[in-house]
Formats: sequence, structure tokens, C-alpha cells
Amino acid sequence: MSATVHPPVPEGRQELVLERIEAFRRRRPRLTDEVVTLAHGAGGKASAALIDAVFLEAFRNEALEQLGDGALLPLPSGDQLAFATDSYVVRPHRFPGGSIGSLAVHGTVNDLAMCGARPSWLSAAFVIEEGFPVAELAALAADMAAAAAAAGVTVVTGDTKVVDTGAADGVFITTAGVGLVPAGRRLAADRVRPGDVVLVSGTLGDHGVAVLLARGDLDLEADVTSDTAPLAGLVEVLLAAAPGTRWLRDPTRGGVGTVCNELAAQAGVAVVLQESALPVRRPVGGACDLLGIDPLYVANEGKFVAVVPAEEAGAALTALRAHPLGADAAVIGRIAGEPERIVLLETSFGGSRIVDMLVGDPLPRIC
Amino acid sequence: MSATVHPPVPEGRQELVLERIEAFRRRRPRLTDEVVTLAHGAGGKASAALIDAVFLEAFRNEALEQLGDGALLPLPSGDQLAFATDSYVVRPHRFPGGSIGSLAVHGTVNDLAMCGARPSWLSAAFVIEEGFPVAELAALAADMAAAAAAAGVTVVTGDTKVVDTGAADGVFITTAGVGLVPAGRRLAADRVRPGDVVLVSGTLGDHGVAVLLARGDLDLEADVTSDTAPLAGLVEVLLAAAPGTRWLRDPTRGGVGTVCNELAAQAGVAVVLQESALPVRRPVGGACDLLGIDPLYVANEGKFVAVVPAEEAGAALTALRAHPLGADAAVIGRIAGEPERIVLLETSFGGSRIVDMLVGDPLPRIC
Repeated sequence: MSATVHPPVPEGRQELVLERIEAFRRRRPRLTDEVVTLAHGAGGKASAALIDAVFLEAFRNEALEQLGDGALLPLPSGDQLAFATDSYVVRPHRFPGGSIGSLAVHGTVNDLAMCGARPSWLSAAFVIEEGFPVAELAALAADMAAAAAAAGVTVVTGDTKVVDTGAADGVFITTAGVGLVPAGRRLAADRVRPGDVVLVSGTLGDHGVAVLLARGDLDLEADVTSDTAPLAGLVEVLLAAAPGTRWLRDPTRGGVGTVCNELAAQAGVAVVLQESALPVRRPVGGACDLLGIDPLYVANEGKFVAVVPAEEAGAALTALRAHPLGADAAVIGRIAGEPERIVLLETSFGGSRIVDMLVGDPLPRIC
Repeated sequence: MSATVHPPVPEGRQELVLERIEAFRRRRPRLTDEVVTLAHGAGGKASAALIDAVFLEAFRNEALEQLGDGALLPLPSGDQLAFATDSYVVRPHRFPGGSIGSLAVHGTVNDLAMCGARPSWLSAAFVIEEGFPVAELAALAADMAAAAAAAGVTVVTGDTKVVDTGAADGVFITTAGVGLVPAGRRLAADRVRPGDVVLVSGTLGDHGVAVLLARGDLDLEADVTSDTAPLAGLVEVLLAAAPGTRWLRDPTRGGVGTVCNELAAQAGVAVVLQESALPVRRPVGGACDLLGIDPLYVANEGKFVAVVPAEEAGAALTALRAHPLGADAAVIGRIAGEPERIVLLETSFGGSRIVDMLVGDPLPRIC
């Protein structure tokens, strides 16, 4: 590793920074908790520790260990099938811009799109608390149907379970999705190279803040709408403009900060973000300031982070901005060779700080 | 429709029976409830009404309307993909013979197998209540891994959500599965013909009764073990011995009585079962008698009902009985042309009664 940390560190502090970096590298999350906490569901460091210790340990296999948004599976025909799943437990069930129903479609469609797949079919499994209003269930199903139609997918199979009052919180929805990856397309962390450019398809934190405000327990009003949206179309726009695109991920739970850490760890590179380039809507930024949370860690449900070759970044940005879902797309950083496995944020003051994965869960049940 | 109801009805009662049959036919389940009740999750009449009114209404499409255990989807290669999902909410999480973990693998693998598919890949999504012991979660994951290995499937993708204490009951697991259907294989209700034979692969009601007894709120002890098991291997044995097999279904929630009603309705035939031929283990039958429930409606998790051409029934039975999971296989009835859409049970006393779909939910949260 080079003795110079990028960006330059004030005289006399280089050693301190190098020590911190080493400490981060060693700190592969390890599960020490004896019971599951909300943090284990937040998509950050505790989630990674739980997944490592419990699920990877039990199920260890190549497809799962990719830890992508979905699994890529070889069919006998030579085609590649993408397969993804997510459970949705968001509270409240309705929020500005969407509902648990539309989210359950968008989230899984987006996981498939992040694998490079064209989403085709969804399953939908409902765990419903006894006493849940049938009309509300029907309205959520209608939201799902509308979201599916807009995303070009079909809900082809499902399940309904009912549990006694108090054994669930209204309704939980689990969707799984399948789609095919067009021949020759491969998006993967190991394709990322120093010099590549990091893009985001729009503003950060809209979903998390919209849901938080919709809960109404904060004495805070702001005009924030969830960004929940299907991204498969925007991905096709990106790949047409920047066919060399290396890697894609939707920064849901854990936010952009966490997915950049996953990228840095998987690709063995540094992700260097520029604070001033991060697109954040004013009311979202204001709410985050008041709540003491960082938009870098707040969930998005209609955005992706993409790594593209530097020479394709301009075309990618132009194409994304011409699409309604990519109007606020921005270059937010670059890939560097060092310090390996670290995300750095170049602050507006000319310094830099290490961006860790999300620790704890500032916003539980956001998706 | 013929004026003679099979089997013969005592003099003077024919008209009454005909009227009852007509009433049943008209009684296509209609949703009248304003809130969801446990019966809507029981897999019987109320479930069908909820699915019709809410989910079919919203998602209406050809694959879903088959109402099979899974969906059959055409791939561009000409292959046919089977896709199935189920949520598992069984209480307690462990019971003699299995756990919510092994059940979550077997249930979805079996849904794929009932479509004629060779199950290959599973997803697993967990909704976990804050405070759930990590060691217990790890033990359930180990159960899943063991069940998957035994069934020849791989858990390739997943999700973990955590909800606050009191918002779920320990853990809910949703699995989805995909697999390919070998070329030329088609199992469907529309292939069923009068004269065909109805087989069951083993004893009825073991799973439901085992779970009920494991709850310990009944003052009843009996040595009953859940039959939870993966059926894809046994299906291959059946199809090798009886290549003309028409239709398969695993009688989980709602039991054999309910799946035979679904078959009768979808195929437009009568399913005529013989009470004396139904294989029921003595302690299961005894527990059902004490509880006032009918083994015909109790859930199984390692059994299938098959309709085979009469000329292949002998070979099918011999082959099934030679397999450890099919040792108690039996011919339990036959398909008749009339009365259409009705399931009749020929009782041991020489009479017959109509077997309706399960009404209500005698055994909630059984899977």
C-alpha cells in the first residue's frame, strides 16, 4: 500500500489515518449478539455479520456467496436466469409515493435489473394478521398489479397465510422474481477498475425520509415523496449508452454508503466519493440534518449506483438525464486502487473521511 | 346430468341428493367478509374466496389462473420453467419430524414437483422478530440446508428483515423455488378422465396432527410424527412406472378433501373416494376422533394425490410402495363423469356423502 492516502491528509496525521484504515480492514463484521436486533435487518454491518454467521454458514454455495442483489443461475440452454427475493415489512403500509404493495414489486424487479436481467415474472406471498381489512388488502394488491404492469412483469404465483391477531403487524409481503440475462451481459464487482467513474441515477434518501415522515411521530413536516420506481428500463438506457458498465447496485437499506463499502470489499478497490457531488433534495437534507442521520445511509427504492469506464461516463450521464427516472443523475466519485477495500468521502472542506458501512439502524422497517 | 347419482342412493332420497348437488355447484365461494380471518389462510373454501376476490381480481393472467401449486412459464429456449412460493408461519417452530426450516424447503420443493418440475434452486426470505435467539435461527438455517441437500436443491439467494418485538411471532420464512419441467411432461386437471384411478402416496393427516399435539394445549399424548419430506424423487418413481399420470397435487392445508374438490372443479368430473381405503395411522385417526376433525381435511407435508390411467394404477402402486416415502401408498378412489364438480365419499356403511372443501380452520398455523 502506498504511503500517501488519497486525498492528501494534513501533516502529522498520515500515520493516524493509516492505522484507522488497517483497523477497518481487519474489522470484517463478526456476529457477537445472542439475539436478533433491529440492526440485523438494517442492511448494514450487523446484517452482514448475521448473514455471514447464520445463512452463508448454513447454505454455503457459489451463487449465494456472490452476495449480489439476486442469484445468477445457468440454464441447460446456455441462458442465464436471475432469481431474487425480498420480504417487505415497511410501516406505515402507505406513504407519499407508494405503498408496501408497489414497493414489493419495485424492490424485487430492481434486484433483478441490478443483475443485468430483464425481469419477467414475480411470485407474491402474503402473511396477513387476522382482522386486517379486506378492502385494504385489495388496495395493496391493486398497487402491486399497477406496479407490475408498469414494470412489464407478471405476478404468476403466490401464497396467503393468516396468523392470529398480534402475531404479525398487518401484512408482510414477500416477492420473488425471475428474469433472463441477455447473452454476453455481465455486471460484477470483479470488473471494476481504478479510474472507473461512480454514478448515481438520482437524489439520495428520498424513500427513507418519506417513510419516516409518514409515520408522523416526528414533529416535522416536509414535502418528501418516496422514489419507489422500477429501474429495469433505466438500466437498459444506461447499458445502451455505456455498454462497458461494470457493476450496478440499488442502494436500498444501508444506502449509498453501505453499497459502496460492499463494492470496495468485493472488488478490492477504493471508492472515493465527493461530498459536494452527492445529489440530495433540500427537504431530505434538512430532515436528515434535524434527525442527525446521513443521507449516505438512507434507503432509496428507485435509484442505482453504477460504475462505468471513465470514457463512457459522459454518455451515460447524458442518457440517464434524458430519462424521467434519471433526471438528477450525477457523477459522485471514482474508483482508486488504494486504499483497498475502503470508501473515502472527500469533504467540501478539502479533507476526507472514511465512510463505514451503516452501523445500527436509525430507520427501522423502511422497506 | 344423469338422474342416477353414483353410488346408488336409497329410494326416495334421490331428489334430495340432487338438490344438494345443485346447491353445491352454485356455491362457488364468494368473499363476504370485511376483515381477514384465520379461515382465509386455511387453504379451504374461505382461502379460495379470498384468492378469487382479491388476488385473481388484481393480477388476472393465464399462469396464475391455473391455480396450480406453482406457475409454468415458457422460456425462449422452449424449456418450461416452474416457479412456486409459500410462506411458512407454523407454530411451534419445532415439532416431531421437522421444523419450520425443513418445512419451508419441503413445501416449496413439493409444489415444484407437483408441476412435474425437477426442483433446482430456492430463495429464502426471513421476517424475524427482534429478540429471536441467534442460535435458534442458526439451527433453523441448518435444518433448511439439510433439507435442501436431501432434496437436491440449492438455496441461492435470500433476504433478512427484522421487525420490532410484538410485530411478528418469532420467525416467518418465505421460500420460492424454480426448476425445469422435462420436455413433453404435462400434468394438468384437463387430462383427467372418467375411469382414471386416484392414488395417495401414504397416510393422511400426520403433519397436521403432529403439529397440533406439539402445541401441547390439548390434554392428549400420541406418538405422531410429521410426514414432512421432499417428494420430487417419489414423483420421478411414479412417472417412470405410470407415464400416463394425469395430475398431481400435494394435499397440504385443506387436506385430501380440499384438493379433490379443486380437481373435481377444474376437471369438471366427479371424484369418488372410498372411505375404507383412506390410509390413516391409528394414533392420527384416534386424535382426529377425539378432536372432532376429519383426516380428509388435515394437512400433509410429504404426500401427494395422483390421478393415473386405470391400466397404469397397479404399476404405480407397486413402484410407490417400493420407495421409503411411498410405503403406505393406496388406491383411494376413482374419477367418474358425474356428478360433475363433486367429491363423493363412499362410506363403510354402503352410503355416500358429499365431501365439501374445508370450511373454517380447525387447525390454524399448521404450515
